[in-house]
Amino acid sequence: MLFMVKMDVNIPAEFDAEKATQLKFVEKNRFQELQRSGKWRHIWRVVGQYANVSIFDVESNAELHDLLVTLPLYPFMTVTVAPLCRHPSSIYEDDR
Amino acid sequence: MLFMVKMDVNIPAEFDAEKATQLKFVEKNRFQELQRSGKWRHIWRVVGQYANVSIFDVESNAELHDLLVTLPLYPFMTVTVAPLCRHPSSIYEDDR
Amino acid sequence: MLFMVKMDVNIPAEFDAEKATQLKFVEKNRFQELQRSGKWRHIWRVVGQYANVSIFDVESNAELHDLLVTLPLYPFMTVTVAPLCRHPSSIYEDDR
Amino acid sequence: MLFMVKMDVNIPAEFDAEKATQLKFVEKNRFQELQRSGKWRHIWRVVGQYANVSIFDVESNAELHDLLVTLPLYPFMTVTVAPLCRHPSSIYEDDR
Amino acid sequence: MLFMVKMDVNIPAEFDAEKATQLKFVEKNRFQELQRSGKWRHIWRVVGQYANVSIFDVESNAELHDLLVTLPLYPFMTVTVAPLCRHPSSIYEDDR
Amino acid sequence: MLFMVKMDVNIPAEFDAEKATQLKFVEKNRFQELQRSGKWRHIWRVVGQYANVSIFDVESNAELHDLLVTLPLYPFMTVTVAPLCRHPSSIYEDDR
Amino acid sequence: MLFMVKMDVNIPAEFDAEKATQLKFVEKNRFQELQRSGKWRHIWRVVGQYANVSIFDVESNAELHDLLVTLPLYPFMTVTVAPLCRHPSSIYEDDR
Amino acid sequence: MLFMVKMDVNIPAEFDAEKATQLKFVEKNRFQELQRSGKWRHIWRVVGQYANVSIFDVESNAELHDLLVTLPLYPFMTVTVAPLCRHPSSIYEDDR
Amino acid sequence: MLFMVKMDVNIPAEFDAEKATQLKFVEKNRFQELQRSGKWRHIWRVVGQYANVSIFDVESNAELHDLLVTLPLYPFMTVTVAPLCRHPSSIYEDDR
Amino acid sequence: MLFMVKMDVNIPAEFDAEKATQLKFVEKNRFQELQRSGKWRHIWRVVGQYANVSIFDVESNAELHDLLVTLPLYPFMTVTVAPLCRHPSSIYEDDR
Repeated sequence: MLFMVKMDVNIPAEFDAEKATQLKFVEKNRFQELQRSGKWRHIWRVVGQYANVSIFDVESNAELHDLLVTLPLYPFMTVTVAPLCRHPSSIYEDDR
Repeated sequence: MLFMVKMDVNIPAEFDAEKATQLKFVEKNRFQELQRSGKWRHIWRVVGQYANVSIFDVESNAELHDLLVTLPLYPFMTVTVAPLCRHPSSIYEDDR
Repeated sequence: MLFMVKMDVNIPAEFDAEKATQLKFVEKNRFQELQRSGKWRHIWRVVGQYANVSIFDVESNAELHDLLVTLPLYPFMTVTVAPLCRHPSSIYEDDR
Repeated sequence: MLFMVKMDVNIPAEFDAEKATQLKFVEKNRFQELQRSGKWRHIWRVVGQYANVSIFDVESNAELHDLLVTLPLYPFMTVTVAPLCRHPSSIYEDDR
Repeated sequence: MLFMVKMDVNIPAEFDAEKATQLKFVEKNRFQELQRSGKWRHIWRVVGQYANVSIFDVESNAELHDLLVTLPLYPFMTVTVAPLCRHPSSIYEDDR
Repeated sequence: MLFMVKMDVNIPAEFDAEKATQLKFVEKNRFQELQRSGKWRHIWRVVGQYANVSIFDVESNAELHDLLVTLPLYPFMTVTVAPLCRHPSSIYEDDR
Repeated sequence: MLFMVKMDVNIPAEFDAEKATQLKFVEKNRFQELQRSGKWRHIWRVVGQYANVSIFDVESNAELHDLLVTLPLYPFMTVTVAPLCRHPSSIYEDDR
Repeated sequence: MLFMVKMDVNIPAEFDAEKATQLKFVEKNRFQELQRSGKWRHIWRVVGQYANVSIFDVESNAELHDLLVTLPLYPFMTVTVAPLCRHPSSIYEDDR
Repeated sequence: MLFMVKMDVNIPAEFDAEKATQLKFVEKNRFQELQRSGKWRHIWRVVGQYANVSIFDVESNAELHDLLVTLPLYPFMTVTVAPLCRHPSSIYEDDR
Repeated sequence: MLFMVKMDVNIPAEFDAEKATQLKFVEKNRFQELQRSGKWRHIWRVVGQYANVSIFDVESNAELHDLLVTLPLYPFMTVTVAPLCRHPSSIYEDDR
């Protein structure tokens, strides 16, 4: 089941720089783990923003919620979620 | 070069029904042609809306503009465009 | 899987009154069929509005989309969809 | 009398972590007490947000106000309230 | 139980003038009936607008909904509703 | 001359608690003085908010401005002002 | 008593051209009458818009309301009103 | 050349009180100097706000920019600028 | 003196097609005349929109207003205007 | 390939003044380097704002992203990006 998620990241200037670097490192590892599993299917940078647009492929709303709120950078994110589904015109049975 | 495009379609109730069916048919054909060429890489329905979220992969801003404004249903669309680029954390060299 | 859906209904003044009455009758029947099946779990009027807030319990995003866009009054609706999930504090295992 | 209430919770990063844990514990207890009494009829998480959508069933506007502003986490909440009423199409006399 | 209601009235230019005059006459009568009963406690014009701000004093959400949607000009109104309650600082036990 | 004023109050969490209590006490006294004088004709709590909706009855714009900006809690308020006037349908000559 | 009023004028394309010309002529005469009386103290075009920003100097809210809603082009206007008062720093006792 | 400028002033509560008083004093002097020169033609308080609406009469965009950004309180202001021009209906050749 | 102007063009579907073609032709000629004169310095299409972003270089606010409101397609445009000035960091004395 | 970029700069009052001066100096140098290279084709101040409107001419979305996020003042900027393309009416083959 597909969802588009936009994540705007805003780490305050006064936040400890070392801790931020560490959080970003853990975030990257967690992201790649989810990408490999196929749950975080796509990720793109939004040009000019510290933000990404992503496509998730999960079993349920609850699974998506758990994936998102346990991201290391989640406390610094503004998140929007839009449920998607297959488009009837697509030539691909399973466009993910 | 990647762009996310959201298209909200609004065909007025008073628009000729037969003409609408015909336009949707031409639209579908044009869409599938662009999907096959790889320029219209992804398309998803937004749940509950007569709208889609799409990913385009084009050579230039001008090519994207020409693709969009020549869509048969373009006169009935509200279109938003967001330029994207590869995310540095992605494990795929070429996530499209 | 739960979703909150808000439907604002706006039938234009110039729309044929008899046809509107008929559409509302079909809508009501379709609604009650979905309510009985458990898929449309709750519906409430929003005070002062021709609008409702509803809770849907469906198998997938695609099922929700199909239920919504085939509603007889759908062409006159503005629809917003928010995916929900169980709240960890709830004393009910299955609050629907 | 039914009301839909949305609560967005935002505890600042610099807020004392232990105090926050304690507040959440007291909040959970107070919530479950209200849930058991039938006044806080439903609660759902909004996917991807530290937020809930709830249905309250109270005697009056004043009772709802008192319940909300005395919640332990209220100082960290953005609250929106929408008065609801029974939908005439519902097959349930008393859909709460 | 008190509610603040704002009503913006917009009768389209092409609407039959005589019918509009008649509707306004019926609206005025209905309003005065509700004002006399004490349910429509206050009404004020918003300066420069074809709009009013009103205070209703009703038994329940459902009663307010029924009063509003049966107003003769309701089909031409945009309505917003805010539930109110007594202010603890007021020197009047029953400020309506 | 009547004005509707909405006041949203937001005292930052880090503001000295004792000072806040004192300010609220002075605010309440000043409010009751203005209520007794008839200048602050109505005040209601907005359900779920630390906010009020009020009706002022003053001689001029300048008098209203002076009353508002000298309120003890004014530095913590977001204020909106809407000029009102008598509604021609009202059965009361002087609905305040 | 001073008010800033912004008027956005939007005469639909399908409105009878001759009638529009006539309305504008009557509007201009009415405007100049009010300008001469000192009640409509200032008027400026907003660059690129069919809109004006004006300063009114009236006795009361009610007088302003009556002036505005009886303007010949009022049915085609979107009007916003902001009450103003003398600025304490002004070197002019009576800046109008 | 005329411009309408709205300035919302927001001096943070934690800003040094003495420094604020001093800045306001310098601001007032600078304002009166510009008022005397005819460049800052009008200033009015917006009722209930720490804000003013002003009319500037300057030689060029650049001159307006320089006047605004060198105001002592500019760092605490949110500024909006709207270019104006003479209204063709005005009976005054040079309404400033 | 420089201004950025955004023009969103919206010709209703029911507008006479031949008349629209003719208006666009006259618009293009008028545009090129202004481009040659140096007053309409830049024009770009906004990707995916029937809209342009333009830079005007004019003598005064009044000249810009007259240029804009006399454009053949002006009745179908939504126009926004932002006054600009030279940037102090620019290496070009006269960046237009 | 052309993009319009708007940059709103907001350096907090409490930020170290010397460091800010230094950052602005580095920013200016970086800007002029990009201006000389032709990638940052235009820059204009927005009147009354600490903001600029700029036109970039780059090879790809990715190049624009890299240019923007490495600007010394980027952490203090709110950035909006709009992809542009040549306007068909322009008399210049290559309007940059």
